[in-house]
Amino acid sequence: MSRICAVDYVDHVGVAVKSVDAALDFFEGVFGIPRVEAKDLPDQGVRAALLEVGQTRLELLEPLAPGTPVGRFLERRGEGLHHLAFNVADVSRSLEAVKAAGLRVIDAAPREGLSGLIAFIHPKSTHGTLMELVQSV
Amino acid sequence: MSRICAVDYVDHVGVAVKSVDAALDFFEGVFGIPRVEAKDLPDQGVRAALLEVGQTRLELLEPLAPGTPVGRFLERRGEGLHHLAFNVADVSRSLEAVKAAGLRVIDAAPREGLSGLIAFIHPKSTHGTLMELVQSV
Repeated sequence: MSRICAVDYVDHVGVAVKSVDAALDFFEGVFGIPRVEAKDLPDQGVRAALLEVGQTRLELLEPLAPGTPVGRFLERRGEGLHHLAFNVADVSRSLEAVKAAGLRVIDAAPREGLSGLIAFIHPKSTHGTLMELVQSV
Repeated sequence: MSRICAVDYVDHVGVAVKSVDAALDFFEGVFGIPRVEAKDLPDQGVRAALLEVGQTRLELLEPLAPGTPVGRFLERRGEGLHHLAFNVADVSRSLEAVKAAGLRVIDAAPREGLSGLIAFIHPKSTHGTLMELVQSV
């Protein structure tokens, strides 16, 4: 079954927000989730923070500018759920497996992200959900 | 801190799809996630399946008719991420806590769902994400 990209667990759920700081206040104040420091990632056009919730995490994403991918998402759909990330043992092998299975990928090769080595799969190939593969580093 | 609704982990991520059966094929075929039986829940207007992925789950939701909440979601936004569910120890207390914190809730009292005793919080109060509180039963 070389076509299968086995996933281990949900690495994180990406959430697009207008302000990471306001969202950190919300998740701490209402749900008691300890706040973490946000980081600017200019190459991805976002200010981001990874909040731990059990085995998985919430990745809060604020656009650094309107024309960025997350900025366009906010304009089109408003704040809310943005992507779903699966943790995998070997992101290069997993990416090759999903390509071999005929899925349309956004990243031809893995790259460094906030959560590890990552690669995105296009929602057109996944029943509408922008999906990310993550290899912890 | 009686206003805080402490969450334990991400119980599941809800995904709206046109066909649960097609989505089960996809998640098994591409990601190796063992398929489960789908159930019709006429009072919620959905055919649903809960796929286990590590500590959390994917809740696949197919509308039983166009005018249902998930049916309207599909018409408006297409297939994709629908809601985020946190597992809590006591959903009644948690629901009271989020109401006391001023959040707008969809369910005035907990009710039975596929994943346990549940209550939804309106996305207007949560930075755009439809959120669900789940108490395992």
